[in-house]
Amino acid sequence: MLLDQNRLFPLEGSARGLARALYDQIGGLPIISPHGHTDPRWFAEDAAFADAAQLFVTPDHYVFRMLFSQGVDLDALGVPRADGHAAQRDGRAIWRLFAQNFHLLRGTPSWIWLTHAFAEVFDIHDRLTPQNADALYDRITDSLAQPAFRPRALFARFNIEVLATTESALDDLRWHRMIRDSGWQGRVITAYRPDAVVDPEFDGFVGNLTRLGELTGEDAMTWAGYLAAHRARRAYFIGFGATSSDHGHPTARTENLSAQDAAALFDIVKTGRATAEQADAFRGQMLTEMARMSLDDGLVLQIHAGAWRNHSAPMFAAFGRDKGFDIPTRTDFVRNLKPLLDAYGTDPRLSVIVFMLDETTLSRELAPLAGVYPALKLGPPWWFFDSPEGMRRFRELTTETAGFYNTVGFNDDTRAFCSIPARHDVARRVDCAYLATLCASGRMVEEDAFEVAHDLAYRLAKQAYRL
Amino acid sequence: MLLDQNRLFPLEGSARGLARALYDQIGGLPIISPHGHTDPRWFAEDAAFADAAQLFVTPDHYVFRMLFSQGVDLDALGVPRADGHAAQRDGRAIWRLFAQNFHLLRGTPSWIWLTHAFAEVFDIHDRLTPQNADALYDRITDSLAQPAFRPRALFARFNIEVLATTESALDDLRWHRMIRDSGWQGRVITAYRPDAVVDPEFDGFVGNLTRLGELTGEDAMTWAGYLAAHRARRAYFIGFGATSSDHGHPTARTENLSAQDAAALFDIVKTGRATAEQADAFRGQMLTEMARMSLDDGLVLQIHAGAWRNHSAPMFAAFGRDKGFDIPTRTDFVRNLKPLLDAYGTDPRLSVIVFMLDETTLSRELAPLAGVYPALKLGPPWWFFDSPEGMRRFRELTTETAGFYNTVGFNDDTRAFCSIPARHDVARRVDCAYLATLCASGRMVEEDAFEVAHDLAYRLAKQAYRL
Amino acid sequence: MLLDQNRLFPLEGSARGLARALYDQIGGLPIISPHGHTDPRWFAEDAAFADAAQLFVTPDHYVFRMLFSQGVDLDALGVPRADGHAAQRDGRAIWRLFAQNFHLLRGTPSWIWLTHAFAEVFDIHDRLTPQNADALYDRITDSLAQPAFRPRALFARFNIEVLATTESALDDLRWHRMIRDSGWQGRVITAYRPDAVVDPEFDGFVGNLTRLGELTGEDAMTWAGYLAAHRARRAYFIGFGATSSDHGHPTARTENLSAQDAAALFDIVKTGRATAEQADAFRGQMLTEMARMSLDDGLVLQIHAGAWRNHSAPMFAAFGRDKGFDIPTRTDFVRNLKPLLDAYGTDPRLSVIVFMLDETTLSRELAPLAGVYPALKLGPPWWFFDSPEGMRRFRELTTETAGFYNTVGFNDDTRAFCSIPARHDVARRVDCAYLATLCASGRMVEEDAFEVAHDLAYRLAKQAYRL
Repeated sequence: MLLDQNRLFPLEGSARGLARALYDQIGGLPIISPHGHTDPRWFAEDAAFADAAQLFVTPDHYVFRMLFSQGVDLDALGVPRADGHAAQRDGRAIWRLFAQNFHLLRGTPSWIWLTHAFAEVFDIHDRLTPQNADALYDRITDSLAQPAFRPRALFARFNIEVLATTESALDDLRWHRMIRDSGWQGRVITAYRPDAVVDPEFDGFVGNLTRLGELTGEDAMTWAGYLAAHRARRAYFIGFGATSSDHGHPTARTENLSAQDAAALFDIVKTGRATAEQADAFRGQMLTEMARMSLDDGLVLQIHAGAWRNHSAPMFAAFGRDKGFDIPTRTDFVRNLKPLLDAYGTDPRLSVIVFMLDETTLSRELAPLAGVYPALKLGPPWWFFDSPEGMRRFRELTTETAGFYNTVGFNDDTRAFCSIPARHDVARRVDCAYLATLCASGRMVEEDAFEVAHDLAYRLAKQAYRL
Repeated sequence: MLLDQNRLFPLEGSARGLARALYDQIGGLPIISPHGHTDPRWFAEDAAFADAAQLFVTPDHYVFRMLFSQGVDLDALGVPRADGHAAQRDGRAIWRLFAQNFHLLRGTPSWIWLTHAFAEVFDIHDRLTPQNADALYDRITDSLAQPAFRPRALFARFNIEVLATTESALDDLRWHRMIRDSGWQGRVITAYRPDAVVDPEFDGFVGNLTRLGELTGEDAMTWAGYLAAHRARRAYFIGFGATSSDHGHPTARTENLSAQDAAALFDIVKTGRATAEQADAFRGQMLTEMARMSLDDGLVLQIHAGAWRNHSAPMFAAFGRDKGFDIPTRTDFVRNLKPLLDAYGTDPRLSVIVFMLDETTLSRELAPLAGVYPALKLGPPWWFFDSPEGMRRFRELTTETAGFYNTVGFNDDTRAFCSIPARHDVARRVDCAYLATLCASGRMVEEDAFEVAHDLAYRLAKQAYRL
Repeated sequence: MLLDQNRLFPLEGSARGLARALYDQIGGLPIISPHGHTDPRWFAEDAAFADAAQLFVTPDHYVFRMLFSQGVDLDALGVPRADGHAAQRDGRAIWRLFAQNFHLLRGTPSWIWLTHAFAEVFDIHDRLTPQNADALYDRITDSLAQPAFRPRALFARFNIEVLATTESALDDLRWHRMIRDSGWQGRVITAYRPDAVVDPEFDGFVGNLTRLGELTGEDAMTWAGYLAAHRARRAYFIGFGATSSDHGHPTARTENLSAQDAAALFDIVKTGRATAEQADAFRGQMLTEMARMSLDDGLVLQIHAGAWRNHSAPMFAAFGRDKGFDIPTRTDFVRNLKPLLDAYGTDPRLSVIVFMLDETTLSRELAPLAGVYPALKLGPPWWFFDSPEGMRRFRELTTETAGFYNTVGFNDDTRAFCSIPARHDVARRVDCAYLATLCASGRMVEEDAFEVAHDLAYRLAKQAYRL
């Protein structure tokens, strides 16, 4: 079996046994997925996925970036160019190329996720090789044509209790409306992602402001109207189940300007001529504005900071965004979060979840901050740290200072639908392994470990995201 | 038993057995506590501690910061406000609130320390729960009224060979005098902490200089007189056993200005109108001045750098200092220590002990520096890193480059008296586990491990602090 | 036996067994040493090494820096001063002093390397102590006088398939010529290290340019001539087997200036009056120029960044370079490598190998970059990270994001000849341990692990360095 039943558990016998016992209790709990990027259209239309390559290769930048790093052409993998054109549209050809390079994924979480999905979703228990590539392609592609492999059926089979997608503030949420109107019982909710109208450096920012005004009937070109428009869109999103907003900024900067200074800054940025410094300050101010709105409407505020997006200029020109070229950078939270924390950090009604891409901040900054500010919680390790070692380090670097209860369970944050159960399974196993190790080394009692295991797998995510 | 006899040892059998053997040899050695913040008044007056809450909750910011982070009100925990007023004075009510939230400490060193103290000092072997809160409160509080639980009795029972407290340069050391005059044989010594008269940004700095002059009969408003006053105070502290000075600075900056430039800088800072840059430069210069004085009077120079003190402005206003809001920041030692090291770093007569709050500096900066400069030693991991994982990472990140003999044993650095044996026990266990792992993986021979275990638990602290 | 046959393997039984099986397959493979600093004269002349102290103590700054850090005088260890004078020339006296302080190396990789060399090269299986110092000195020194311990004999005995040395761009490669002319079959090649004529802050830079012109017949004082001279020297080095160039810069900065701007910058730096900023920019520009040349002549481009060389001013004045005072500093690769990567990073014909001295960059910057840019590969952990813990952290911090195939096997990077087999053995064991742990925790299948073990020990180094 490729899929070891005791995978990711401690190797030593007694700790392994306890990890097994912990996992046996919580491994089958429903999945709470409060942050992710699956396409709500899947659940609205419930159409079949096209083929194995469209499911596993073309949309997964973890996979195609690794192949690209070893010289495999993105065109040959069917990754669409910035103009939308995909050079290779033959799924089987893409899959064969993938199979030839599958060894490049050894030791990576993609290998685990794919192996898990092959086994659990498609009952495939062989290693993918050039020799069996065609057979596996046929098996997966044939399965996808069956009703049991449609999005809603898989949603049920994956035991997902709630799944949040992420939509732009300017999105009309048509697919979410279609899901709601369909009478389907699956709980798929949205989240409010206003980067397009908050970040002065976002493509088309000024036009986006105009559109925001149109959508809300507010004069989004005044500071007061702009804030009112956000409030209106937040309410609209809440109407489609949203319990959180989501903010992806290059830095963790926050500001708490006076209303007058904030309005003056807005008057600059709305012209589209903000300097980089003004743009950064405005983003920072808007985090504090969002916190203020959260105190009224209850949305959880998610901040993720520290990515250099689209690092390669020529690749961005040729292939556009989200092609695996978002690179983490050194991040500061101590100075940057202070204005927001001084304003609202001690208010237990507020829930701010911070995500990092710079592990050095965990023990030095984030655990000490989350371990004292009532409003602040630590999001799980994600992106490149959504991995066994990343998760282990996260617990080792945060628990002693922030405990377990200032963390918020797991986020899969994924576009790859079949990886959702695989990723939650990895997180649950790594957490059980960590708890078992604490018990086996006399740092925790087993009775507590069973309770914490349940909290990490299920309860904390529901509580933190108010689900 | 909550307290596993093999806690913190490796899980694998042969390494566990060796760790056990190492610990059996050194676990009972007398405690050398060369740096801490216990109150000398306890040992001077030898009065009973008030109750369980006053012993374990109210003074321990590790405990109350965690409860606060989950929405527990500091007033309700009896933590005094900046004006000294404590809203809740009923120890039993505080203790019940603590018991209701004890689960928040799972996975933290506070859980270990408290469990150790309950078991070893009060013979309590049950988990604290809301149900048994009253019973445990009574048991602890009743015990504290007995002579065997007075400070001097516990000092003896804890097998403390020497305990250093820390006093301001302006302190009259009355309690140390009272201890000395009492004829008690316990060795409680002071340490020279001159931040109040070295840091131009310290509250009341100019007035403090005046007071320094009064205490010493020097004209502390001239550079020469100011230095002479330090020398006099150092001598006074040495008279009460001090073997070290202690400097808590926001950065690790050092300077080595000419006497003329230093005097000119002093003339600015003594007015109370130094810029932030001048203040930082002056603190840096004073570290080098202290090193110079150490060459004469032999005091060990302790530098701890990198904390953002009192991070929350509203909490500082309401509750004052030391309420769990000191947050580590990114720290540089390579550039910052260079002036001091160029001046005195190769002089083996000098002993400079550096502490960090930024673990990234361990393998990159501090181990390489301590592994070559004779004057430089690494202080143990403390604050949030005074923990099993923090200690393990410290050894893993420093030993290969700095060895064991450029480290200085353990510091408990604590205000919580009952945590002293618990903390030293954790350090001894983690070090034995590390040594056993080295042996079991063929990187050390057992004979050497026994010697190093003894060094880390006892000898190095005595030697490094000249005790 | 000091040398445990299962050293550095996992402690738990099944993982240990698999590590053993992996190592049994690859532990005896020939050594590929594509980057190092052994002296080609050894192999040219094949003269006997002088004595035990000259072999193990005097030239090894890992050893003498540790002794110096504990107060041992460099003069007494025979380390030559900047003027070339060595105060102590009696090998036996040096060796005795070394033996007295051998305990300082406990827990360090030097202890492992020395223990390995003593056992494997000199059949010595006792711990070095003051008591047996003379006996061991005699044994080693006597052995060195025998033909079997001459450089070429040891080269064969160490099973070295290829060994690269490193020479300055201005070197005449006389020893490499002598090796070639000797008819000896050992493959010792050079590498092109042009810091002396690339770094405007290098000692004698302007004179070095003149010499570069003389050596090549180009007008090295014009930008075009200077580049042509580099091309000529690269071709010359390629004639002596070079497959790589090597660049040690204080930062990882790269630039991609227009030809006009680059020429203008060169016109400044060639005067010897470049500012620090201009010098840094020029070094950065030259990395991109070297990449451009590599596309023509195929040399692999090695960049190692982030050392503060000769940190102690007085020690540099007294003893000169390379005395253990090179200290790592915080390094940025995301911003700094962008100009080079934008220019050539996606060209799979180019091979850029980046080395780090700041482990925080591994998971945050280098693995994400190497996991997507085809031209970029990660060099192994070296300097202070050429150690069991350093190697383990390297795999744990890079594999999940960059995989195994964006790394390049092991470099010993050493001046200490007898440490070459010891260092490769450590690397092979640590990699086998890591692979065994992946398998035992269900993250890899054994069949793959055997293939990867072979790749890491042998194939990847040959492939990455085009050997």
